[in-house]
Amino acid sequence: MKKEITIYDIAADVGLSPTTVSRALSNHPRVKDVTRNKILHAAKTLGYQSNIFASSLRKRKSNSIGVIVPKLNSAFQSAVLAGMEKTATQAGYNLIISQSMESLDKEISNTSIMFNSRVDGLLVSKAGTTDNIEHFRPFFQKNIPVLFFDRVPENNHCTGVVINNTQAIYDATAHLIKQGCKRIVHVLGNLQINVYADRLKGYKYALMDHGFVFDPANIITNELDEDSGERIVEKITQMKPMPDGLLISNDTSAASCLMALKKKGISVPEDIAIVGFNNDLISRMVEPNLSTVHYPSYHMGEVAMKNLINHLDDEHQEILQKTNTITLRSGLIIRESSLRKP
Amino acid sequence: MKKEITIYDIAADVGLSPTTVSRALSNHPRVKDVTRNKILHAAKTLGYQSNIFASSLRKRKSNSIGVIVPKLNSAFQSAVLAGMEKTATQAGYNLIISQSMESLDKEISNTSIMFNSRVDGLLVSKAGTTDNIEHFRPFFQKNIPVLFFDRVPENNHCTGVVINNTQAIYDATAHLIKQGCKRIVHVLGNLQINVYADRLKGYKYALMDHGFVFDPANIITNELDEDSGERIVEKITQMKPMPDGLLISNDTSAASCLMALKKKGISVPEDIAIVGFNNDLISRMVEPNLSTVHYPSYHMGEVAMKNLINHLDDEHQEILQKTNTITLRSGLIIRESSLRKP
Repeated sequence: MKKEITIYDIAADVGLSPTTVSRALSNHPRVKDVTRNKILHAAKTLGYQSNIFASSLRKRKSNSIGVIVPKLNSAFQSAVLAGMEKTATQAGYNLIISQSMESLDKEISNTSIMFNSRVDGLLVSKAGTTDNIEHFRPFFQKNIPVLFFDRVPENNHCTGVVINNTQAIYDATAHLIKQGCKRIVHVLGNLQINVYADRLKGYKYALMDHGFVFDPANIITNELDEDSGERIVEKITQMKPMPDGLLISNDTSAASCLMALKKKGISVPEDIAIVGFNNDLISRMVEPNLSTVHYPSYHMGEVAMKNLINHLDDEHQEILQKTNTITLRSGLIIRESSLRKP
Repeated sequence: MKKEITIYDIAADVGLSPTTVSRALSNHPRVKDVTRNKILHAAKTLGYQSNIFASSLRKRKSNSIGVIVPKLNSAFQSAVLAGMEKTATQAGYNLIISQSMESLDKEISNTSIMFNSRVDGLLVSKAGTTDNIEHFRPFFQKNIPVLFFDRVPENNHCTGVVINNTQAIYDATAHLIKQGCKRIVHVLGNLQINVYADRLKGYKYALMDHGFVFDPANIITNELDEDSGERIVEKITQMKPMPDGLLISNDTSAASCLMALKKKGISVPEDIAIVGFNNDLISRMVEPNLSTVHYPSYHMGEVAMKNLINHLDDEHQEILQKTNTITLRSGLIIRESSLRKP
């Protein structure tokens, strides 16, 4: 490695005192513009690297924020991260990002790395198998803020940014009932995750409020990936009588089901009406277009990051500590896949 | 902020010397297992935070790698990042991620933040408007490795991880010719980006090798987003005679064109055969399924990160300095959108 350029090298180069150089580099008002520009030019030419790193150590601040997501490779998460990055950059923070791969063990390891990297705050969407938040205790002990988004733990001490999953699926279920569906199957992921547990509630409440009886046989928990359609459709075609409504917890899986149904000659929405979730690109490209729930993913990233950064600013500390949940607006989007002709 | 827990606090707690505590925490072989476990347990209970930060400063290593992408919110980039994160975590590095939003100014600012954050290396996919690499000079001067991926600058001093874009579009063009297409329109993004410039070459070479004359009127440069289809189809339906083949530089835009063509009652592949690019989820879900080019995005993330990390290991320095380009395997995937019945 080459010798490190210091303010003394810059001072020697421009023929000014190290004090003046130091002042110019930290934007001290005493330094004249012409002098400052001369010094900044020399600093650039010599390859001076301002030491955020060492100065962070003095200030006990790393100017970085950790983000742990279940999987980076998802349309939802990449939109959330885009919103976070924009907000963090504007406020002068770096983003340190890792993925838990839906594993509690990996999440524990990620958390420990973030802690030892001295992030100023942590944003987490928890892994499917995470059933406690013991591994965040070192953050709580040191008053380093931890904010959850989308997948939040059942714990009143944490702040979470979410949508109202119960209401979203309540509305979707009520819509299918209004379209004449009598037997609605709800497909969701791991029920340990609050997101799916809350949606299941919304489904049950809507059935009850419309005079239907909840039947556990109509709940399918499954991977919600691109290949899930065949497996799900296999299951529902064996049900007697066959369901006439399908509520699926993401658009990738809903699109995959749509393909599998069409392959079997089952008409959508005439034989089975479908509603997906997330309003991903794919929901607007398959035929028929998928009804779905708009999820404000980019906005969720912005809001979560903004709240964390406000908290890091001392004056606002109180606000986040007193906040339990920040709920963003979501909403049902009705398209052809669930709209039966009158 | 609470008082920082030191090895002296741990020593007092367990009744052992600070030297023993320090040895135990750094896995010194002289410390017995039972003692080490006692010390580790006390360290955890007290909330001791090992100082990667300060120890990095001593070693002049931050154990973090910077990544700059044009946009986080893309199926391609999120797959690349997933591959990078997995590889970096396995090797004990953090990922610091930012997006240039396709702007040279933002890329310059990102680069400067990465430099001052003392990343050990940098991985970059350049912005559309980036026409020079002057802003990476501080990295070159300090021998901090910079590795480009997908979108690489025209510069022999840099190492890039790419696919053979020229060959990929050559093969796609030859395929359309074989399917009987006589007038093939090629839709691409900003031609300042190597990716698109190389693809244009592949298109021209294939036409030439098959006895066709290249006509600049058959090149459309356009945004390749979800809404691009209507604009592109508007243009091609005004061409006389209308094209019978469409080569589109990503699947989102190809799917959008497919929708717009169908809306106008133009049959795919009978009237116009379509080939997209990337092999995104969407290419397998629209009807007809899109022919496309497989882009090994996750693998590109792994390979780029692995090469950078190997380089940071002194022994391998030579290899990366002597490497100009690492080309990954890609390949044409033929589906219904371009397959005409015999």
